[in-house]
Order: sequence, then structure tokens, then C-alpha cells
Amino acid sequence: MGTKQDIEEGAEFIPKFDDNGLISAIAQDSQTGQILMVAYMNRQALDMTIQTGYATYFSRSRQKLWKKGEQSGHVQKVEQILVDCDQDCLILKVSVDAGQCHVGYRSCFYRALKKNTDKKLKFIADKVYNAQKTYRE
Amino acid sequence: MGTKQDIEEGAEFIPKFDDNGLISAIAQDSQTGQILMVAYMNRQALDMTIQTGYATYFSRSRQKLWKKGEQSGHVQKVEQILVDCDQDCLILKVSVDAGQCHVGYRSCFYRALKKNTDKKLKFIADKVYNAQKTYRE
Repeated sequence: MGTKQDIEEGAEFIPKFDDNGLISAIAQDSQTGQILMVAYMNRQALDMTIQTGYATYFSRSRQKLWKKGEQSGHVQKVEQILVDCDQDCLILKVSVDAGQCHVGYRSCFYRALKKNTDKKLKFIADKVYNAQKTYRE
Repeated sequence: MGTKQDIEEGAEFIPKFDDNGLISAIAQDSQTGQILMVAYMNRQALDMTIQTGYATYFSRSRQKLWKKGEQSGHVQKVEQILVDCDQDCLILKVSVDAGQCHVGYRSCFYRALKKNTDKKLKFIADKVYNAQKTYRE
């Protein structure tokens, strides 16, 4: 545990994991700045990401480590890891070669709220690969 | 509640709030793509954001609604709201006129993990305003 001063103004990396032992991580395309996805890491996933240079997350639904791309081949090569002021959120600057969303899009953020509504979404991207083919058993 | 198909492939906005009634929201500079901060919204904060066009969050530490900039004046004008595949995370594309981090930086992500270490951070930005002056009582 560091003081508020240490955490916010210091040069020591003191990532703060929540009550479930997780920290959120945003994968951002290092070339374009596009936000690709948001996922969670436990301590082990973060260590593996740092050691291997490829993004590894912790799957909350499957409750296990998940190397991004282990099934799809769509890995994330980590160029840089940023941390925010209170050290409870990370950005991974990644380079990727294909769609990153399991639905088939480059980014998980493929829909935007329509103007003057709070209920309707519009699609703002096209699918870039065949997810059903990629993820079939 | 929607089906997985509705949530992932549909055009209905069905934001998923967690057990604490919160959804995470990433504020991203609509001009530069820089990620400025990550915060949380409850249903009311999201409604206020949509209705007013300015970002309102829910402060977990203070347990109350927090219109970004209410104290500092550094508001976030929301240009677009994006949602991810499983609708449990939002991106606010915002335009801003000044530093957004309470420590004094433009972005809360002003430090990066140094190469070949898992403990040391380097500062990658300069402060853009005097936070002590802005936030003093």
C-alpha cells in the first residue's frame, strides 16, 4: 500500500486490484488510438502480460486466465502499459493484425447511441472476419 | 434483460449495470483519440449525461453524482456515446478545453511502465494546470 501521494505522484507501479483481485485494462490500438476492448486482469494475468509481451486477461465468466487470441489467433502485442492517477486502471497500447471482438468486429465498440434517443443504437463499423468460423469448435 | 443475441447484435441500448448499479465509462478525446479518464455511472448519471450533453459520473468515493467539471470548470462535452459488445462498458467521445485529471495532467494516464521492469513508472506527460489552485477550498 502506498500513500495517496505515492500512488498519484510517484514513479512506483502499485496497481490496485479490486475486492475480486481484478484491475480493468483497456486495449487501445497503438497506431490509430482506437479503443478495441476492455477486460480484466488479476495479478497473474498482469505478470504474464509483462513477461511475455502479449496481453493476457482474466475471464470473469470462465474464471480463468485467458491469453487473448489463444483460440482465435488474434493476439495483442503490447507496446506500452499506462496506468491512471489512482492506479486502478490500465491502458495496454497494442498492435493487432485483425478483428479483436468475438462478434466479428475490429473493436468491441461497434455501436453508438443515436442522437436524441436513449434507447436506439446505430452500427458504426463493419465486421472484419467471420466469427462463427473462427470460434466454432 | 435481452438475450445474448439482442445484446450483441441488436440495435437496442440495454446498458448492463453491475451489482453496485454501476457501468464503467471511458472518456476519450474526440479530436485526438487520447484516453482521458475512466469513471463510473449509475442509471441516473447516464440519463443526465444523455439529457444534458455533458458528462456526469457517479463518484464511488463520495457516493454521489458528480458532474465532471462542477468544481474545476473542466467539463466534458459529449459528442458520442459508444457501447461494447456485451453492453457493460461505455466510451464517451468528448471535447474538452483543459486538463481532465485532478492531479493536473490532461489525461489521468500520465505514466507508463518502464521497459523491462514490473515496478517502475516513467512520466510521459507534463502538467497542464495548477491542480492545487483549482481544487483548493
